[in-house]
Amino acid sequence: MLHPVILSGGSGSRLWPLSRQNLPKQFLALIGELSLFQETVRRAEALPGAQPPVTVCSEEHRFMVGEQLQAIGVGNGGILLEPVARNTAPAIALAALHLVAKDPQATMLVMPADHLIENEAAFRDAVAHAASLATEGWLVAFGIRPDYAETGYGYILRGQALSDDGFRIEKFVEKPELATAERYLAEGTYAWNSGMFLFQAQRYLDELSRHAPAILAAAREAYAQAQTDLDFVRVGKDAFAVGPSDSIDYAVMEKTDRAAVVPVSCGWSDIGSWSSLWAVAERDADGNRYEGDVISVDTRDSLVRASERRMIATIGVEDLVIVDTPDATLVARKDRVQDVKTIVDKLKAAGRQEHLFHRKVYRPWGSYDSIDMGERFQVKRIVVKPGAALSLQKHHKRAEHWIVVSGVAEVTCDDKVFDLHENESTYIPLGSVHRLRNRGTEPVELIEVQSGSYLGEDDIVRLEDVYGRS
Amino acid sequence: MLHPVILSGGSGSRLWPLSRQNLPKQFLALIGELSLFQETVRRAEALPGAQPPVTVCSEEHRFMVGEQLQAIGVGNGGILLEPVARNTAPAIALAALHLVAKDPQATMLVMPADHLIENEAAFRDAVAHAASLATEGWLVAFGIRPDYAETGYGYILRGQALSDDGFRIEKFVEKPELATAERYLAEGTYAWNSGMFLFQAQRYLDELSRHAPAILAAAREAYAQAQTDLDFVRVGKDAFAVGPSDSIDYAVMEKTDRAAVVPVSCGWSDIGSWSSLWAVAERDADGNRYEGDVISVDTRDSLVRASERRMIATIGVEDLVIVDTPDATLVARKDRVQDVKTIVDKLKAAGRQEHLFHRKVYRPWGSYDSIDMGERFQVKRIVVKPGAALSLQKHHKRAEHWIVVSGVAEVTCDDKVFDLHENESTYIPLGSVHRLRNRGTEPVELIEVQSGSYLGEDDIVRLEDVYGRS
Repeated sequence: MLHPVILSGGSGSRLWPLSRQNLPKQFLALIGELSLFQETVRRAEALPGAQPPVTVCSEEHRFMVGEQLQAIGVGNGGILLEPVARNTAPAIALAALHLVAKDPQATMLVMPADHLIENEAAFRDAVAHAASLATEGWLVAFGIRPDYAETGYGYILRGQALSDDGFRIEKFVEKPELATAERYLAEGTYAWNSGMFLFQAQRYLDELSRHAPAILAAAREAYAQAQTDLDFVRVGKDAFAVGPSDSIDYAVMEKTDRAAVVPVSCGWSDIGSWSSLWAVAERDADGNRYEGDVISVDTRDSLVRASERRMIATIGVEDLVIVDTPDATLVARKDRVQDVKTIVDKLKAAGRQEHLFHRKVYRPWGSYDSIDMGERFQVKRIVVKPGAALSLQKHHKRAEHWIVVSGVAEVTCDDKVFDLHENESTYIPLGSVHRLRNRGTEPVELIEVQSGSYLGEDDIVRLEDVYGRS
Repeated sequence: MLHPVILSGGSGSRLWPLSRQNLPKQFLALIGELSLFQETVRRAEALPGAQPPVTVCSEEHRFMVGEQLQAIGVGNGGILLEPVARNTAPAIALAALHLVAKDPQATMLVMPADHLIENEAAFRDAVAHAASLATEGWLVAFGIRPDYAETGYGYILRGQALSDDGFRIEKFVEKPELATAERYLAEGTYAWNSGMFLFQAQRYLDELSRHAPAILAAAREAYAQAQTDLDFVRVGKDAFAVGPSDSIDYAVMEKTDRAAVVPVSCGWSDIGSWSSLWAVAERDADGNRYEGDVISVDTRDSLVRASERRMIATIGVEDLVIVDTPDATLVARKDRVQDVKTIVDKLKAAGRQEHLFHRKVYRPWGSYDSIDMGERFQVKRIVVKPGAALSLQKHHKRAEHWIVVSGVAEVTCDDKVFDLHENESTYIPLGSVHRLRNRGTEPVELIEVQSGSYLGEDDIVRLEDVYGRS
């Protein structure tokens, strides 16, 4: 019985402007139709004996995780909400506690939600191998056999052989200088630290108790206070917050004498930047990767990504990353994309929003997109998912006009409840208690025109909410 | 009595995506608050003895010309509509005929609408000088003293001195190779052909009659058939179209023995490309020109222009032109911007719209902007100018919802006429005869939600139109 544990804690700044704090990298379809999170889940689900995955994520991303699981029809082994970020050791501890409560023999496969693996067969073999080591009590890290001298990853030096393809871990080493990375590559005994692990859940807790007891104590107390809310397991916030923040590498793997590594070549990438996405993407004969509506003249070795209803034209450029979104466009030299972080820091410092949210904002009931804005008005396109409902709410400073453009909306406005069909409209006066619901099987799309002196998202009084937000 | 004649015939592809066929370069505020056309008019108006300008433009741009004149409070000496493009000699002939009809002694100053002149005092001195030569019957071209070896302009070689600063024209020469341009610069007797001229209108007609009688005959016949429509003088289309297409340089200036040149250094640029705009614009210490919301890291010698409600972030780039508009973004190497034409050709070949119109389209009554679009709906922001009215119209395939977000709209819907105030809405059923009018003194802004099976601009039956479009 193999329990995949998906760590979905990424903050989403390195692929800005496509990734935002509210919609980090793991939830984006960067390569193909599915998001990296969905690909990770699907890959885990295909493993022999795999159980429904346990996901660890933040409060902010809980609905996104739920929806993306549902969209690919994957069962749910639990969505554990980290009340605050405390790095990987405590997050994995919560998952281990959650698993041993149901299955004391549980073996867990820990996978970051935002990595790419191209060769699934190689990965599957490595998991099988790691699983057999885990039954002997080993805590197994997956090492990626390097194919070039990467300076952006930590490395694992292997020691004594434990089996054909498994080794004791001799040591973990930090991101090296280029010359060191070249030596590591030449020596053949170093592997990239992928952040993926496999071990018995109880064994992890035992090692944590030995090497980082404060982390285990905090996680245990937080999990003991857990409350279930819809699909989510919400652990005790204060109890979790008092625990130390540390990575599994430092807290456990470097300290235990049961650390093993299984090296694997499986086309792995952490897609840690736009240039690494370019490197793994299929490209045309000129080395370009285009997505969306792109027209180019003499363009080479570039990644260009247009957004909906917008085209990008390029002339005579090379080695560029151009990423367009409805409210922000990035133009960067491909070898400088790590400075996207500098842009995000500038946005934070300026108190702006473009690093937090897209213009289109996802909510548990669907999404809204602010398509136009003026001094005393705002226009939104609102999509309500089948079966979903917004909260029963009112606004102090704005009236709203709704025009349904597809589907059938059930509208509550004060004491009236009625259906609104395509090409029908209604008016929600300032101060009216109202709700929008989709009882149908197709999405409801409507245009909302807000009119008033203040149009901020915080002018909302939620009287009832099926998602527990009131 | 000096009559400025503004030639506003530019087609607007070289500054794409900011310029479009429907909104060419001369109508854009590229440097400062006013458009190049307005700057040209204002500069002409400030000359001693200047009369209200005569403008020659295409049918398509007539309302834009009218509005931009009105916006700066400049009188109107006539807006002559070229029914088809026939180059500068026939266009100037129309203006000359228009002027001599009212003032046989008229002196005309011909200026392209889309040029920049930074040193107005120097320009004014040159005009005074040219005017004195014109009284002696000279046809004067303004030559720009070159400050570098430009290969993109034609040159004028001066001959015998006629005065301190005026010379006979020895010859016109085509755009030179670089080595030739360098020689021209060194010799000091060559000047750039600016496309600006000054002469007596009758003298121009006399020379045309001698050297290009077919051009004059066509212009005369077309002007004889002229009809006045609102502010516009619409000349006979077929009569004008049969005339040859030729430039004033070829048709007259190279042939007459009365061609003179007045060389001047007046900070002139034809802003013929994004790189020449960058060259004349004020730049920061790193050589960058930013317009709008731009955040940059290590960026040099670039022109970056963001559009409303959108930001552009740049990292580690240099010598780029980045121009954003609501539906298209250009990223080009600064020394390759002449290939914008290649992009425009590709758009034409693909039957697209992005070279013709902006997302926001100007109409005589105001503007509309398609802010969102779906399978069976479209959302527009419509602005109706004070005193303006859309045509009385109906649609066969769409219904419309209107929500006023500012001002007071007068709505006609079948047999009803009523006012709609801010935060009020109405519904125009499919097939209803309707009209929108602004009787007030402030612009009316409204959101239109169209719903239907076909939403093209051509689904319109105009029953009445104050702008003569029905």
